[in-house]
Amino acid sequence: MSEAPEVELWFEFGSVYSYLAVMRIEREARKFNVSVRWKPFLLGAVFQAIGLKSNPITEHKEKRDYSLRDIARQCSKYGLQWVEPITFPRPGLLPLRVALAGADEPWIGKFCRAVMELNYGTHEDINDPERLSTLMESLDLPASSLLEQARDEKTKARLREQTELAYRKGLFGAPSILVGSELFWGNDRLEDALSYAVNPEKM
Amino acid sequence: MSEAPEVELWFEFGSVYSYLAVMRIEREARKFNVSVRWKPFLLGAVFQAIGLKSNPITEHKEKRDYSLRDIARQCSKYGLQWVEPITFPRPGLLPLRVALAGADEPWIGKFCRAVMELNYGTHEDINDPERLSTLMESLDLPASSLLEQARDEKTKARLREQTELAYRKGLFGAPSILVGSELFWGNDRLEDALSYAVNPEKM
Repeated sequence: MSEAPEVELWFEFGSVYSYLAVMRIEREARKFNVSVRWKPFLLGAVFQAIGLKSNPITEHKEKRDYSLRDIARQCSKYGLQWVEPITFPRPGLLPLRVALAGADEPWIGKFCRAVMELNYGTHEDINDPERLSTLMESLDLPASSLLEQARDEKTKARLREQTELAYRKGLFGAPSILVGSELFWGNDRLEDALSYAVNPEKM
Repeated sequence: MSEAPEVELWFEFGSVYSYLAVMRIEREARKFNVSVRWKPFLLGAVFQAIGLKSNPITEHKEKRDYSLRDIARQCSKYGLQWVEPITFPRPGLLPLRVALAGADEPWIGKFCRAVMELNYGTHEDINDPERLSTLMESLDLPASSLLEQARDEKTKARLREQTELAYRKGLFGAPSILVGSELFWGNDRLEDALSYAVNPEKM
């Protein structure tokens, strides 16, 4: 077993804290010599399955206000762009399906970062097929073929299956990082998860 | 204004994540040359005021299971003792009133750490007046006089007032760190709060 240890990043574009982890994970993982598997899933469906009536981040005014301030500060700390969304959280189903179709491709990290930057950094509509096509073309990706895959019923079904899997694995929020069956919740646990992947005995 | 910058630690003994911050804050604050003011408050009353029906940490099974695992890992990371509580969360009203009475005393940090270690490290009943007396005596504190103050109606009223103040300041969880009116929620934001206290422009 000489393979590099691996972590799974479970995320969704509508999740602001996923923004932080998506932007950071590949750079941080390289420091630990850990590889990343990208696992898009439908966070809202997991909330429903758990029995939550609303997004925990917006369930009351105090937490919503705080979260927006916290995210702004975290983006500043990590050197990330941040424009406060008009709709919060902001859904992104179409790019999530593209991410599922391309989850094992070498460009997946680059694609996810570009979608996140568009969503939270410059505040554009990531669900707009034309805007998403332009973005994919700018990354030298086969835009029309990927959009076709994203809209394929098989992809839609696979995203639902992956979401059910997230729930069965005990996920209840995003981003979540899985190292085997060990769950780390939130961008704040990214370094802990990578450290655990390298040396599980230490924790 | 040559005084050291200051942060307020809003906490309660029944909050497991407060355990982490209470144990760490004075050591971390020294690195930043920041002073700490201790602000005990009634977390459950704030949850009620916000309209939460249950403790967010135990509102569903998935999060409860995760939180216990997460706390165990965090304690391991910080080198803190951890015994999984039988009752979770575990209330601690009597020592909270002592903490309020002694909030500005030089021994407050030492007292709070000792109570937390008893609660989560060795799993003893921190609400038992005799056990609490023994603890205070071991710290060379005037146990009977402090218990008397803790039970005084004025102290009880002050704790309720401080709790109302927490709510008015926008707090919705514990630990919370306030730097002026800037709120940082959770042990995970301790270093950010201290950094902000020293240099608000950076964030």
